[in-house]
Amino acid sequence: MKHTLPILTLAATVGIAGSTFADDAVDYPEGYRNWTHIKTMVLHEGHPLENPFLGIHHVYGNPAAAAGSKTGQFAEGSVLVFDLLEYNTADNASTEGERVLVGVMVKDSDTYPATGGWGFEGFDGDSRTTRLVEDGGKSCFACHASQQNHDYVFSQWRD
Amino acid sequence: MKHTLPILTLAATVGIAGSTFADDAVDYPEGYRNWTHIKTMVLHEGHPLENPFLGIHHVYGNPAAAAGSKTGQFAEGSVLVFDLLEYNTADNASTEGERVLVGVMVKDSDTYPATGGWGFEGFDGDSRTTRLVEDGGKSCFACHASQQNHDYVFSQWRD
Repeated sequence: MKHTLPILTLAATVGIAGSTFADDAVDYPEGYRNWTHIKTMVLHEGHPLENPFLGIHHVYGNPAAAAGSKTGQFAEGSVLVFDLLEYNTADNASTEGERVLVGVMVKDSDTYPATGGWGFEGFDGDSRTTRLVEDGGKSCFACHASQQNHDYVFSQWRD
Repeated sequence: MKHTLPILTLAATVGIAGSTFADDAVDYPEGYRNWTHIKTMVLHEGHPLENPFLGIHHVYGNPAAAAGSKTGQFAEGSVLVFDLLEYNTADNASTEGERVLVGVMVKDSDTYPATGGWGFEGFDGDSRTTRLVEDGGKSCFACHASQQNHDYVFSQWRD
């Protein structure tokens, strides 16, 4: 037991340093599977975005994002999740397979002014720590910029 | 204005009579679009259940049903929704179309002992009043009976 405290202290120090260094990092969206399901879409082979978005994706929103998807205006703190799964077809039925990635958009205009007020991140497969976005979200935003009149969000509410 | 009160009184009387007559009727699941999304599946042409289940369906659960989908044991009051939409494919992408029907399962063992403790109903398209089940859910249950070891529910939680 005598080594516990120093180890915890070291971990806490590293944690603080890490969070100071990357305080614009987008958090993993814990609990999103219980958020509101906004819409679903399937991208097949040959679609321009098949790499890396081949498969079936569901879009979930926290309460602020779900509200925003109906109006096109998203309050600060809105979080949208793009949950991409493999899409498996057999016997005339298609089912959801393994998770490919979890994409996240967080509305925080002060932190992300260069990308429309949104922070972008992707998490690999089921990982909560392996991050996929390497350019600060610039490439994500390049595509989302086309949706400026819906606050840079493609998804619109489906009743 | 002078005719308003008698009309409302008549409507209330009919309403009470109707609800007494059909007190085992499954309610339309108001607000289910904000419930937990449990899973999604697509049935294509040629699938044995294509009539009437052709298209993309999402399964939603209220909190009790979402919990039950993880354990296979559903508390009284669990409600599951089978939300069936047209499935439209173009340009190597598939999107959700018009609503075909809303299927509902309600766990109420006292009210529905003949169908595994579940009440079954379907609502046509976007209607909250046009009901599709005409046999008290017997035909629904005939298929769901195969899932006895999961409390007659096909859907299992997807993380």
